[in-house]
Amino acid sequence: MGIRDLVRKENLTYEDAMTIRKLVDLPGGFELHYGMFLPTLIGQGTEEQLDAWLGQALSMRIVGTYAQTELGHGTFLRGLETTASFDKLTDEFVIDSPTPTATKWWPGGLGKTATHAVVMCRLFLDGKDLGPHPFVVQLRDLETHLPVQGVEVGDIGPKMGYNGVDNGFLRFDRVRVPRAALLSRYAKVDRDGRYAPPPKANAKSSYATMVVVRADIVKYAGEVLSKAATIAVRYNAVRRQTAPEPGGLEEIILNYQQSARNLIPTVAKSYALIFMGQTMWDMYGRFEGQRDSGDFSALPELHATSSCLKALCTWVTTAGIEVCRQSCGGQGYSLLSGLPSLYTNYVQNLTWEGDNTILCLQAARYLVKQLHAILAAHRGGRPQPELAQTVAYLAGTVSDDPFLDVSRQDYEFHDLLSFEVLDSIMAQRCLFVAGQALDNLEANARRLDAEPKIGEGAAWNASHVIMVKLAKCHGWLLLHRSFHGKIESLRKEGKVSDASLRVLESLYHLFTISHIEDSLGDFLEGNVLAPSQSQLIHEATQALLLKLRPEVVCLVDAFAHDDYSLNSAIGAYDGDVYNRLYEMAKGSPFNDTQEGPAWDDLLKPFLTRRGRKAKL
Amino acid sequence: MGIRDLVRKENLTYEDAMTIRKLVDLPGGFELHYGMFLPTLIGQGTEEQLDAWLGQALSMRIVGTYAQTELGHGTFLRGLETTASFDKLTDEFVIDSPTPTATKWWPGGLGKTATHAVVMCRLFLDGKDLGPHPFVVQLRDLETHLPVQGVEVGDIGPKMGYNGVDNGFLRFDRVRVPRAALLSRYAKVDRDGRYAPPPKANAKSSYATMVVVRADIVKYAGEVLSKAATIAVRYNAVRRQTAPEPGGLEEIILNYQQSARNLIPTVAKSYALIFMGQTMWDMYGRFEGQRDSGDFSALPELHATSSCLKALCTWVTTAGIEVCRQSCGGQGYSLLSGLPSLYTNYVQNLTWEGDNTILCLQAARYLVKQLHAILAAHRGGRPQPELAQTVAYLAGTVSDDPFLDVSRQDYEFHDLLSFEVLDSIMAQRCLFVAGQALDNLEANARRLDAEPKIGEGAAWNASHVIMVKLAKCHGWLLLHRSFHGKIESLRKEGKVSDASLRVLESLYHLFTISHIEDSLGDFLEGNVLAPSQSQLIHEATQALLLKLRPEVVCLVDAFAHDDYSLNSAIGAYDGDVYNRLYEMAKGSPFNDTQEGPAWDDLLKPFLTRRGRKAKL
Ligand SMILES: Cc1cc2nc3c(=O)[nH]c(=O)nc-3n(C[C@H](O)[C@H](O)[C@H](O)COP(=O)(O)OP(=O)(O)OC[C@H]3O[C@@H](n4cnc5c(N)ncnc54)[C@H](O)[C@@H]3O)c2cc1C
Ligand SMILES: Cc1cc2nc3c(=O)[nH]c(=O)nc-3n(C[C@H](O)[C@H](O)[C@H](O)COP(=O)(O)OP(=O)(O)OC[C@H]3O[C@@H](n4cnc5c(N)ncnc54)[C@H](O)[C@@H]3O)c2cc1C
Repeated sequence: MGIRDLVRKENLTYEDAMTIRKLVDLPGGFELHYGMFLPTLIGQGTEEQLDAWLGQALSMRIVGTYAQTELGHGTFLRGLETTASFDKLTDEFVIDSPTPTATKWWPGGLGKTATHAVVMCRLFLDGKDLGPHPFVVQLRDLETHLPVQGVEVGDIGPKMGYNGVDNGFLRFDRVRVPRAALLSRYAKVDRDGRYAPPPKANAKSSYATMVVVRADIVKYAGEVLSKAATIAVRYNAVRRQTAPEPGGLEEIILNYQQSARNLIPTVAKSYALIFMGQTMWDMYGRFEGQRDSGDFSALPELHATSSCLKALCTWVTTAGIEVCRQSCGGQGYSLLSGLPSLYTNYVQNLTWEGDNTILCLQAARYLVKQLHAILAAHRGGRPQPELAQTVAYLAGTVSDDPFLDVSRQDYEFHDLLSFEVLDSIMAQRCLFVAGQALDNLEANARRLDAEPKIGEGAAWNASHVIMVKLAKCHGWLLLHRSFHGKIESLRKEGKVSDASLRVLESLYHLFTISHIEDSLGDFLEGNVLAPSQSQLIHEATQALLLKLRPEVVCLVDAFAHDDYSLNSAIGAYDGDVYNRLYEMAKGSPFNDTQEGPAWDDLLKPFLTRRGRKAKL
Repeated sequence: MGIRDLVRKENLTYEDAMTIRKLVDLPGGFELHYGMFLPTLIGQGTEEQLDAWLGQALSMRIVGTYAQTELGHGTFLRGLETTASFDKLTDEFVIDSPTPTATKWWPGGLGKTATHAVVMCRLFLDGKDLGPHPFVVQLRDLETHLPVQGVEVGDIGPKMGYNGVDNGFLRFDRVRVPRAALLSRYAKVDRDGRYAPPPKANAKSSYATMVVVRADIVKYAGEVLSKAATIAVRYNAVRRQTAPEPGGLEEIILNYQQSARNLIPTVAKSYALIFMGQTMWDMYGRFEGQRDSGDFSALPELHATSSCLKALCTWVTTAGIEVCRQSCGGQGYSLLSGLPSLYTNYVQNLTWEGDNTILCLQAARYLVKQLHAILAAHRGGRPQPELAQTVAYLAGTVSDDPFLDVSRQDYEFHDLLSFEVLDSIMAQRCLFVAGQALDNLEANARRLDAEPKIGEGAAWNASHVIMVKLAKCHGWLLLHRSFHGKIESLRKEGKVSDASLRVLESLYHLFTISHIEDSLGDFLEGNVLAPSQSQLIHEATQALLLKLRPEVVCLVDAFAHDDYSLNSAIGAYDGDVYNRLYEMAKGSPFNDTQEGPAWDDLLKPFLTRRGRKAKL
């Protein structure tokens, strides 16, 4: 609200306001208003509906949220139970929560803030179920803020983090709304209760929006991980522990190999994620061009790409923050380090905007479909189907033209530091796992005497583990390619010095090679590398860690997180860790009095209960 | 304090009181009093010192804590900076914090609760530094609870979890304490300032105490993980999501393969950890017998074993809780599920009682020493050194008598389900990693032109990654053996039905085989398994998941966590998830009023600022 006042006073733009919001970094009850309510209104409302609500929503006289998930249904949207039945007599919809599991659950700001919501309800016309549709529903009185008649609404209680946002629950007891409550840009219901379904292209464009949201999630994953990496690298570069000889200067902990192995690859991952966010925006830009000339053909690829990357990148960030936290010893457990709240506020990203496992399965479905098409063409002697760029390598499943046979080469360290070699290793791993996935699906189909259907059915459900793995492997390939691609475009742009490019290149090598080390099993199992080459991977990782050790502090400084936004006693730019810890601790509310808040009521009566006397 | 009253009223024993405390499970400012202050007093105090303090401490007229860690030093104890200098004139010690980094930091209960502390100070006699020694120091006035003259004490601020405990900081400005403040059962200072060092056996017996503490940590790791597993398995067994065909009954999510892969091995790990805690107690029991006849020879092994297991088991539990949390979708993010606070309260265990990385390095040092002894004997043609039981397999580094050559066998699923086969696989992996560790140490020594010293020095510091890995692999071998060993003793005891033993055996198979799948790279790299055998491991894992699926709910019920101690809306015994979520959410303090706590002060002035009017 302060921001709104500031914007008005200083005459700032919408972008300025969003930047301020990001910097303040205190999500509250209005997140969903800006993030979902307004976009849905604008995207799905008719002109008249925008006239009715947009002005009030923009000036925040009404505050909205987006209520889709129910107690009983998150992933499976088609299972939503809230109903909106058209009453022809009064020209109204009756919104109802027929069961306990129909209770809306989770929407941000719904608990105590929102006055309105876009509510996903199953549309019923003359008893006919037409599936989920979006309705704008008023929830609270605008003067008293009390729930309107028939609405029960409240907060769902404390969460692991993100507690500034009042996620809420919502139940309807036959609440009547006008026909105009149905957002009708696409699907419509007329005065006589006749339904006009949405045009097919609509589904497509909503897929496209998803890609944008997910590109943002990937970029944000990189931002959050780079914050954690900045804090941990700075602390590890300042902290000294253990003297090599009695009385000697203690060693900087980042010079111990395990700290370096924990943190330097995490810096590399942060760069990879940030670059990937940019690459996704580039992909989306190209798609927009095609779309405007009516070409939606890139959508399935975009959808699969964004699905597997949303999942992979949020997992990488979650695990990476925790690695950073653990690398700071005890201080990583103190909120003053800033690391615990990065974690607890972040991990929800694994679940919303599609649960990660589900997204991997969706990406795998696309990959397996491409593979089936390739194999069918091959078996039938037909020309190969045209493949989208990110999956072109799948053609290697029937020919291995483009792949170097690394496993039979007598490679040394410097041979590994080549995009062609690394790309071949990474792509062949994907092909191997893809082959396993197909085999597994068929084996399960045989075992269960079921169809080897893609994306559903008993055989598919029994093959989830390898499908999730396939999607992740594909995602790692994309990260690896995007990292290299971004370095190449930076080189072309010519704005970054050669020295910096060389450092980035080493960082990219470490990114891919340390991933190969972490997942060595896949590469050996698939004969992409020979067991005897493992040692080369270990040595290359060690050598790159040593090479990058002198650069890593600059590499995190380059993320350009200022002290304010890091909010960490141990991660500030100046490295003055101990004084800051001490000052911040002294300021803790517990220290407002010397005796502490529990003295008068609890400790005093207990400790002094019978003329206690110390002998010391 | 309530417990104390209850104990007095009901005339309960110390064990009863401890059980109640565990059930209440609300750690507070007294944790360190019972956990460290009293044991240190009893272990290190003389008769006179016990006379002076024990009575008051037991009746809680004074409350103590244990203050060792300083801002500047956690792992490196020898670096502690707080000083205690003997003043011969007054027969007192002067306790001082000479630098900011000398500030004591972290002790539990120190912030606002403790009146006394055992403070580790560097003992100075006539300017001579005799290293860290324990002193009992009064910190607060017993009537006013204000810090005594020269003491600055306070809370270190909020933490990721465990916030019921007031971890604190502490500084001394030349505080004088009587000579009797030095706990003098072992090291003593006489009236003339002459020092009598502790007998050697003392260090040994304090090592032994460490083993007991760590056995408890391992057991506790199993308890915490089994709580998370209970919650997640029960929810996943009740939650349905996604209908196979329109209108059909939705599938139980535990029937999806990825859920099963996440959760059933986590149940297996919980059992493994609980059994390991028992095995460690057994080991300790045997040691006590030997110790009483003056034989301390088992100590190094015990110390190494307890170090690597403390580290490995706390890591397994940390990662396992998070897997459980993620497997519950959105509900895993709600505190009402009980999962987030299991995590945030638990992860400190990775750091205290020895940072995990450091403990792994200590265990590795022991293992590498044994290997050197074996190799030296072998090279010199001498008979093999006697090896402790847990490391006897290391002799295989110079002979492979006891090992099956699994990689050349044409094994099928049922062949794998044998302790001999699995044990051979697990032990050979350790031997392979041990060999890598030795090679790495020597290579680094050559590269750095340094000594390949064990446990310290530049070459050792540059080999930390493989040393940590060696310790972990050794730990997995111990877990695998202990799991199997416990099943064998249960069988011998004859109290568990054959059917239950068969289920436990499958669980043990899954434990080891899913670990092999997770770490396949090691086994392939070491030629313990051939790449072509990987598929067998995958298939065995899948088959065991299916076999155990019908048992897994009973397996978590058998942990016997009651609903009260799980405190989870989604993990209760009756499976009534949705009503419980709804009721618990409604009871959240945010819902005390319909408008919510922010309405009057914030939202109302903002939203109703200018005769806001809705058009809907
Ligand atoms: C912080 C936060 C904010 C949120 N904000 C909003 C909001 O503003 N508005 C809103 O409408 N919703 C919101 N949500 C809800 C969110 O969209 C859902 O949590 C998400 O869609 C997952 O659904 P679920 O929680 O019901 O999990 P489920 O779908 O029940 O999934 C549980 C588990 O089962 C597995 N599973 C489910 N189905 C399958 C299947 N077919 N095959 C294999 N595995 C399966 C999943 O992988 C997962 O591990 C929010 C959630 C969170 C945590
Ligand atoms: C919740 C909690 C409660 C605690 N309670 C108490 C208490 O009651 N009393 C008390 O005295 N203390 C207490 N502690 C402190 C605890 O004992 C220390 O945090 C622990 O010993 C680790 O020390 P540190 O935090 O200084 O980490 P550091 O020693 O600074 O370690 C930081 C990082 O550096 C690495 N590192 C350090 N030295 C080396 C080396 N030689 N080689 C390789 N890597 C190295 C570590 O692995 C770690 O990753 C508590 C801590 C916590 C989190």
